[in-house]
Amino acid sequence: MLIVQKFGGTSVGDIARIKNVSQKVKAELDKKNKVIVVVSAMSGVTNQLVDYCNQVSTLTNNEALCEYDSIVATGEQITCGLLALQLQSMGYKSRSFLGWQIPLKTDNVHSKARIDEIDGEFLLKALEEFDVVVIAGFQGIHRQSNRVSTLGRGGSDTSAVAIAASVKADLCDIYTDVDGVYTTDPRITEKARKLQKVTYEEMLEMAYSGSKVLQTRSVAMAMAHNVRVRVLSSFGEVSESSGTILVNNNEEIMERRLITGISYSKNDVRLTLMKMPDHPGLSATIFGALANREVNVDMIVQNISADGKFIDITFTILKDELERAKLAIESIKDEVKFAELKIDDNIAKISVIGVGMISHSGVAHTMFKTLADKGINLLLISTSEIKISVLIAKEYGELAVRILHDAFGLEA
Amino acid sequence: MLIVQKFGGTSVGDIARIKNVSQKVKAELDKKNKVIVVVSAMSGVTNQLVDYCNQVSTLTNNEALCEYDSIVATGEQITCGLLALQLQSMGYKSRSFLGWQIPLKTDNVHSKARIDEIDGEFLLKALEEFDVVVIAGFQGIHRQSNRVSTLGRGGSDTSAVAIAASVKADLCDIYTDVDGVYTTDPRITEKARKLQKVTYEEMLEMAYSGSKVLQTRSVAMAMAHNVRVRVLSSFGEVSESSGTILVNNNEEIMERRLITGISYSKNDVRLTLMKMPDHPGLSATIFGALANREVNVDMIVQNISADGKFIDITFTILKDELERAKLAIESIKDEVKFAELKIDDNIAKISVIGVGMISHSGVAHTMFKTLADKGINLLLISTSEIKISVLIAKEYGELAVRILHDAFGLEA
Repeated sequence: MLIVQKFGGTSVGDIARIKNVSQKVKAELDKKNKVIVVVSAMSGVTNQLVDYCNQVSTLTNNEALCEYDSIVATGEQITCGLLALQLQSMGYKSRSFLGWQIPLKTDNVHSKARIDEIDGEFLLKALEEFDVVVIAGFQGIHRQSNRVSTLGRGGSDTSAVAIAASVKADLCDIYTDVDGVYTTDPRITEKARKLQKVTYEEMLEMAYSGSKVLQTRSVAMAMAHNVRVRVLSSFGEVSESSGTILVNNNEEIMERRLITGISYSKNDVRLTLMKMPDHPGLSATIFGALANREVNVDMIVQNISADGKFIDITFTILKDELERAKLAIESIKDEVKFAELKIDDNIAKISVIGVGMISHSGVAHTMFKTLADKGINLLLISTSEIKISVLIAKEYGELAVRILHDAFGLEA
Repeated sequence: MLIVQKFGGTSVGDIARIKNVSQKVKAELDKKNKVIVVVSAMSGVTNQLVDYCNQVSTLTNNEALCEYDSIVATGEQITCGLLALQLQSMGYKSRSFLGWQIPLKTDNVHSKARIDEIDGEFLLKALEEFDVVVIAGFQGIHRQSNRVSTLGRGGSDTSAVAIAASVKADLCDIYTDVDGVYTTDPRITEKARKLQKVTYEEMLEMAYSGSKVLQTRSVAMAMAHNVRVRVLSSFGEVSESSGTILVNNNEEIMERRLITGISYSKNDVRLTLMKMPDHPGLSATIFGALANREVNVDMIVQNISADGKFIDITFTILKDELERAKLAIESIKDEVKFAELKIDDNIAKISVIGVGMISHSGVAHTMFKTLADKGINLLLISTSEIKISVLIAKEYGELAVRILHDAFGLEA
């Protein structure tokens, strides 16, 4: 088997943990597997480097982001070298590769580059010479300018999946500090149950609606290239039943449940533009301005006054993007003529997710009734094929998760 | 003018100091000079990285040293990016270059690589596009393997001089934490005087005999390529008379003094192999074994017994190399049959250096008589065209420096 193993920042947080990681690699090598390892920076290192950058410059043009990328990419450069050294000292033939050495080619959108191409043949050749190769996650190179690029925070997951796709790996094991994907956050209810399997689509919705287990981009890439991804803990023993595996919807082994999991997010903020004179193109103006400032809008609702003359538009965004959103709204103030801008971050977003709901119509009803029975008001609702999200007052957030977990019978 | 500025680890030790460095760069840009900056790692960073390496591996083969180099090279990668960012935030067009981006080509002796070639044309072209380019010191690339190499501790001086040679810079300013080269260590005598000029040969002898101002290799390279090097402090104002400049012996402006400076080293250890049966090739065996272990021998003396049958050989090495020297001697124990190995590190080496002594015969006499008058015994003597070194008991070291400084009239 050809396996890609990815270890996150807490898994390589210090020298003792890097040695622990080397044991996970050894376990696969002992089974005669070929191994490619992808590592993040030691936890805390990237933050320190970003802080240095912020202390000298607030520029965000491309030339500044090139320097930013070259600086922050050193975190992964250090860990991949140390892990290669550690594996050498255990007697393995091992070497590290930086993004530019493979090369892992990206576009030139520095600080959040997209992967264009990875030379999988080069890596497969390296695996003929070495027992194990260790690759710096998160980084690549923009070939035309010959400059280091990075994939954005958490980009090492994406590196690992893309590398697994490029070498057609049998498995991409993402080692992290949790032992898999749960029906909901185990800190909220002890009834939360680890899922053996979850579909790419469900994982994507979970990542998008607040689950921090995997980066959205890495899941989308795994889905696009059909990479078998397993999420598991780097602390403790690994067995056949460890972790959670991402599978296709059509794999018959799927447990057929109505819903698979419940996500919970406190990172959203709700904005309402009050009492705007309605006219064609109003929404386009507002959401165009937000898109220009790279604000991602999640849920949207609009209300029209009884006489049809005025309109309120409510939407949610991530808290991180609030300052940019304010600037965007300020820039169209004269054009859209809102009477008031309301901002509310005293909210929680609860999402029930599951491919099962495609063929069952009762999910929304069960969800809304369960919440209504406890007197929880729905501030906003949005749906996709396999997800229903509601916005509620923050104080009810954890209660909502627990009663929905019960209502959908998600416990073991 | 085209100027190369090099800033050492203490000069870029934190963000405030990197901002200070940017002012030194600005001063040259304000004078319409073109500037290439070479930086070391923030002080302490390289030690931390080396410590990480030592914690995971004690291997010293080439594959391990490749990883070591890739890890420790990150220190300079961080500072060059930060300085480029800082200069951008001041409004300059600036960018960083890593060794592999230029490329600065080296051999494959990882962890102490030698520079083979630098593409000066590439840098000159970059200077057409950018006001100032910032280069990571200490690092290069071995082209055949496409792997990062480093030049050995303190190698950033060598980077700077080699880069200055490759672009035919008018001046290579080495900024450090002292304001120039002194007649002797100012901590030993307050009469020590800063030299306006010093010849390459004198600087080379000073570096070799204990002065830490410049790396020996960088001075040799400056001499070979006739690079005008100035040593000056990164703290405080810079003027025309700042620092010390390295010049050719034949520059008429040289002050003609008998000697130029006095070096003092406490880093040597004296070894004596006692009572070996004399035979042809004995010295070759001993010093061959030491060379094989990469032990650098400095002073050597041999004594033959009255009957000509036995021989004692005494030599000095750096303390750092004592363990390797012991292994070397152990390996030839049966061959050279010494009766005893004496090791003495209670010694100091005092060197008087100056091109003036080529044409004056009285230097040795003055030196020896000055020391004898204070009852200081000479344990070993060695000479070159422009240097006389003596080994004395360590307790007399500082006294010797002071009385010689007086005897040769070095005070201002």
